[in-house]
Amino acid sequence: MPEGVRVAVVGATGAVGPVLLELLHERGYEDVSAFASARSAGQRVAYGERELEVEEATPEAMQSGGFDVAFFAIGTAASRELVPAAVAGGALCIDKSSAFRLADGVPLVVPEVNGERARAHDGIVANPNCSTIQLTCVLKPLHDAAGLAGARLATYQSHSGAGAESVRELLAQAPGEGHVTMDWPFEGDEFEEEDKLREETRKILELPDLHFQATCVRVPVLVGHAQAVWVETERPLSPEEACEALDAAESVRLVDPYPEPRDAVGEDDVLVGRVRRDPTTANGLALFIVCDNLRKGAALNALQILELLQDPVVVADDRRLRAV
Amino acid sequence: MPEGVRVAVVGATGAVGPVLLELLHERGYEDVSAFASARSAGQRVAYGERELEVEEATPEAMQSGGFDVAFFAIGTAASRELVPAAVAGGALCIDKSSAFRLADGVPLVVPEVNGERARAHDGIVANPNCSTIQLTCVLKPLHDAAGLAGARLATYQSHSGAGAESVRELLAQAPGEGHVTMDWPFEGDEFEEEDKLREETRKILELPDLHFQATCVRVPVLVGHAQAVWVETERPLSPEEACEALDAAESVRLVDPYPEPRDAVGEDDVLVGRVRRDPTTANGLALFIVCDNLRKGAALNALQILELLQDPVVVADDRRLRAV
Repeated sequence: MPEGVRVAVVGATGAVGPVLLELLHERGYEDVSAFASARSAGQRVAYGERELEVEEATPEAMQSGGFDVAFFAIGTAASRELVPAAVAGGALCIDKSSAFRLADGVPLVVPEVNGERARAHDGIVANPNCSTIQLTCVLKPLHDAAGLAGARLATYQSHSGAGAESVRELLAQAPGEGHVTMDWPFEGDEFEEEDKLREETRKILELPDLHFQATCVRVPVLVGHAQAVWVETERPLSPEEACEALDAAESVRLVDPYPEPRDAVGEDDVLVGRVRRDPTTANGLALFIVCDNLRKGAALNALQILELLQDPVVVADDRRLRAV
Repeated sequence: MPEGVRVAVVGATGAVGPVLLELLHERGYEDVSAFASARSAGQRVAYGERELEVEEATPEAMQSGGFDVAFFAIGTAASRELVPAAVAGGALCIDKSSAFRLADGVPLVVPEVNGERARAHDGIVANPNCSTIQLTCVLKPLHDAAGLAGARLATYQSHSGAGAESVRELLAQAPGEGHVTMDWPFEGDEFEEEDKLREETRKILELPDLHFQATCVRVPVLVGHAQAVWVETERPLSPEEACEALDAAESVRLVDPYPEPRDAVGEDDVLVGRVRRDPTTANGLALFIVCDNLRKGAALNALQILELLQDPVVVADDRRLRAV
């Protein structure tokens, strides 16, 4: 039901913004405004056959724009400043930054996993970290099938997950110059990214004490995140039973014997393969998960949050979407 | 003691051969012959200021060359044909292929880990898989400290580990075209590389039933392998105790807080960091290991095997190195 919905895309010139604009256009949204920082204001971005002129994202523009929905795909500090202004202006804000993800009262939503939590928002719904989205899409059906006792994973994260500047850096490298790096703030004994992944997974799955450890690594790839995952379940779950549960899960596609990250690029589903016994423990399974970090890992998940809230049943008493 | 030792390097035009030639030259070996397949015969390879003309590696050339030592850094099928000929000709053969690694009676040697096994050779000492070498260098001191109960790991393996052709493919890619791939034969539910890594680790550590699972992944990087590792020990081992054990281990260097793979390129040591508790299990530790897969992961380890066998104590009754 895109007709008449007034949409703002904030961060239109970044890594995620253009993908979000493409998805909005595909779905027929017509009243779309593009915003970015002062540095990028005045640029033009594609919107189907048209172009949109990028406006400067200021608190005033957010508050007075009369937006029904505002998508934010910008840094955490910028979201902290702009999102409350958009909320004050009456917009439903779907925010990709980590500014509000763990805040009490802010739903952190992967529609297929905990979509029912979205409705409880008070103007802000947080879009999880790209790695969290693909992981929880796979962990949820396993949890439902056998109870999740713990998870370990090593990630292979692409440069687009770090934003447009990281993409430009990769594109400026000569052939063979690519390196495995770890470009997140490091504190204590982990990267901020690993802390996010653990705490967001716990919040989304509503397992606050879930045993969890991640090793996050950036690889010289443009788009497509991969994860080598080991899970332990409370009850025995054979690889065959795990595959059945995954096969039945929304937005999850089993690939036999295994998907490579490039198979996921441009796709909406989370691809999973290599579902096998972990012989090092009882009730252990190993899996390999890949996903387009810009689509399901970011823009598509944000749009699905909106679509979920546009569902007439959900929307009935939602003050922000009453006009939809 | 390189004087008078007659050395053959078979696979001189591959990914590992040139590194081996560089190391041999640094150590003062003078009588070195370079071999490769018929396709590469006639090429010239650098040996210090000199150049060596590459000869065709035939069984006849191997058998009649009068070599004291022959290093093989070629494919498995070629090693199966050429190594026995060189053994028949009286050479000590140090073979990098997987042809003989798991054969009974063939020592599979990482000098710092199980160097004492090298002496029992009958003409062939096998050089482990590059991933196995860096892993066992780190697992051994942990095993000695607290008993190794199990290991899981995800690898980030560079293209040079797959040989010169894989390097050329990476160098021919446009910026941003790099992908995460899995380019090994796949059988049952694992890659051949994962099977090698498990079985070689078990043989080297002499833990035939070690609980072990690897997920092997190729990343678009030229040189430098990384591993995200989880280990479980039989007895409790704190991260501090683990670091002490690793710090005391030969050829292992702790990097605080963590090494990136490029830090290892051109270095002799295996670098390890991120030594931390694995909160998902009792007696669990997580680590991150990086290594130059062409040096310690291949050429350097091979040369260290030779140097170990040249030790006068070891050599006393070694029929092949009696002249050294």
